[in-house]
Amino acid sequence: MTNFAIGVDLGGTNLRIAAVDETGHLIAKVTLGTRVSLGRDHVINDMCDAIQRMSAKFSTSGGLLGIGIGVPGIIDLQSGMLRESPNLSGWADYPVRAEIERRINTMVILENDANVAALGEKWLGAAKHYDDMSMWTLGTGVGGGIVVEGKIWHGMNGMAGEFGHNTVEPEGHPCNCGNRGCLEQYASATAVVRMARECVASDASSAFARAFHSDTEFSAKSIYNLAIQGDEDARRIYRRVGQALGIVLANMVNALNLPMYVIGGGVSSAWDAFSPSIFEELRQRSMVYAATAPDALSGSEGASAQVDPGKGRKTIITRALLGSDAGLFGAARLPMIAK
Amino acid sequence: MTNFAIGVDLGGTNLRIAAVDETGHLIAKVTLGTRVSLGRDHVINDMCDAIQRMSAKFSTSGGLLGIGIGVPGIIDLQSGMLRESPNLSGWADYPVRAEIERRINTMVILENDANVAALGEKWLGAAKHYDDMSMWTLGTGVGGGIVVEGKIWHGMNGMAGEFGHNTVEPEGHPCNCGNRGCLEQYASATAVVRMARECVASDASSAFARAFHSDTEFSAKSIYNLAIQGDEDARRIYRRVGQALGIVLANMVNALNLPMYVIGGGVSSAWDAFSPSIFEELRQRSMVYAATAPDALSGSEGASAQVDPGKGRKTIITRALLGSDAGLFGAARLPMIAK
Repeated sequence: MTNFAIGVDLGGTNLRIAAVDETGHLIAKVTLGTRVSLGRDHVINDMCDAIQRMSAKFSTSGGLLGIGIGVPGIIDLQSGMLRESPNLSGWADYPVRAEIERRINTMVILENDANVAALGEKWLGAAKHYDDMSMWTLGTGVGGGIVVEGKIWHGMNGMAGEFGHNTVEPEGHPCNCGNRGCLEQYASATAVVRMARECVASDASSAFARAFHSDTEFSAKSIYNLAIQGDEDARRIYRRVGQALGIVLANMVNALNLPMYVIGGGVSSAWDAFSPSIFEELRQRSMVYAATAPDALSGSEGASAQVDPGKGRKTIITRALLGSDAGLFGAARLPMIAK
Repeated sequence: MTNFAIGVDLGGTNLRIAAVDETGHLIAKVTLGTRVSLGRDHVINDMCDAIQRMSAKFSTSGGLLGIGIGVPGIIDLQSGMLRESPNLSGWADYPVRAEIERRINTMVILENDANVAALGEKWLGAAKHYDDMSMWTLGTGVGGGIVVEGKIWHGMNGMAGEFGHNTVEPEGHPCNCGNRGCLEQYASATAVVRMARECVASDASSAFARAFHSDTEFSAKSIYNLAIQGDEDARRIYRRVGQALGIVLANMVNALNLPMYVIGGGVSSAWDAFSPSIFEELRQRSMVYAATAPDALSGSEGASAQVDPGKGRKTIITRALLGSDAGLFGAARLPMIAK
């Protein structure tokens, strides 16, 4: 008999629901379309129906600990309401948590999707041996989450971890947030495709431009495929991704001095193409990284090894391991660690 | 009968020692020269003599809770040794804490000087009503410290809070840390004087250049005096200080979502000249600030007021209140809150 929780990943396109037991074992998973166009009540009905079927199915083998829901946008943690959610318009100022708690009659926790992904990678993924970490999700946008002592670090309003809007280029590309030159403008899937368009516009006769025009579904993934085939334009785009990430990671390694930073989201599948640039920037730009990088500590970097005051406590930057399930696992984890 | 602690500010020039009681009342203060040239043992003798005289004097009125020492540089928190301290060469790998504990026979805590300044402003200064805050010390360099739940937040090696080395301009002025375009290169007293020299070099006949040449002690303070008299070159230099601070504060407000950021150190006396630029940058560059700025919450900024999920929890950026005593008070606070 093992207790379990239900994790929900409520995206603008897919509604995914999973039952996960306390040991991190996935016992069931369903994926539904998020019928956003039918309105909020339809989506909540679909979600509650699926949760009830799932919890009924496993109620003989263990107790339901609660429900965690990851949602893109800004959440009011106290009231359990969505404040700003670009993909779920019409949900603001509606008591989402209270309504689901009323229907299912169990504890419901609402959380930002980047934060639940961080918690998932901390619990079962790349950071499972670390209590303190941060996760950077490179998707349509760039999200972030910080975990301290095993729990999501919210800051005062639940807004902490917005690494995607750290300024990389003060006069750089305009961002929807109102700033210019945000990390999100260089390291999201959207940014990779924009940089590809800029590249095509600057040289319409290049091999890159021909590949672009011959592929109607040209995406960050297509550009990665070109990069691994050696296309110099594609490689340069991913170097730019890595440089931007390296600058912001350097800022955060200096400011936070965490032991682990996990890079996830769809764009992270191009890790081989952009990660060398991350480490190049980090080494040059972060004195804390230079003093705590894995090879600095083994002594192979000479003098900088002596700077390490932590004696073996290293700064690790690594790929996420759970893919898109990070958010589901993290959401299911929420009721397990709620006090 | 009130217990007291002794705080020490061990700088490269001055050695300052204060007795502070548990209510934050300063009961004694001495300033000695740091006789660095006579060697480590001389400085430690001077310090221990002064501490012993002070603690003997007040031992009838209360118990000595311990000694806190703020030191510029990187400290190994576990061993109580200095790892890197540019002004105290020859101290690395010497058991500073153990030696002082042996001589005085009481608890000794060694801490980075920017961190103790943060703790001082949290205890008795600008952030005294806040449990979570960060402090930015604009001096010869730019130091930083983070306080969470009333205690210094160290990160894994005690290196957290290095805001001074956050990248403002990826291809900007080289920094001693190995990076280019660090905040420290635009917002320290050293940077203000460098920017003044650059300004004089670019137009040797300006009123600013004449003022520069007629003042043998031309400093960040002289430039501030020119700025408040309306000199456009001097004003532009301080706008640059504010812009650089605003960019990095925007990054940190987005990442940390703390309720209070305190700006101190010698350069902060020019607050009037640079702070308008801070707020201009913050408003444009930080979506978290835009949603939580004091005037956003009062509704005067219209739509953005609705984004606030914290209902009244504001982001405050303000001047430090304790001047150079922040470090002394913070150092004295260390043994009081040690568990």
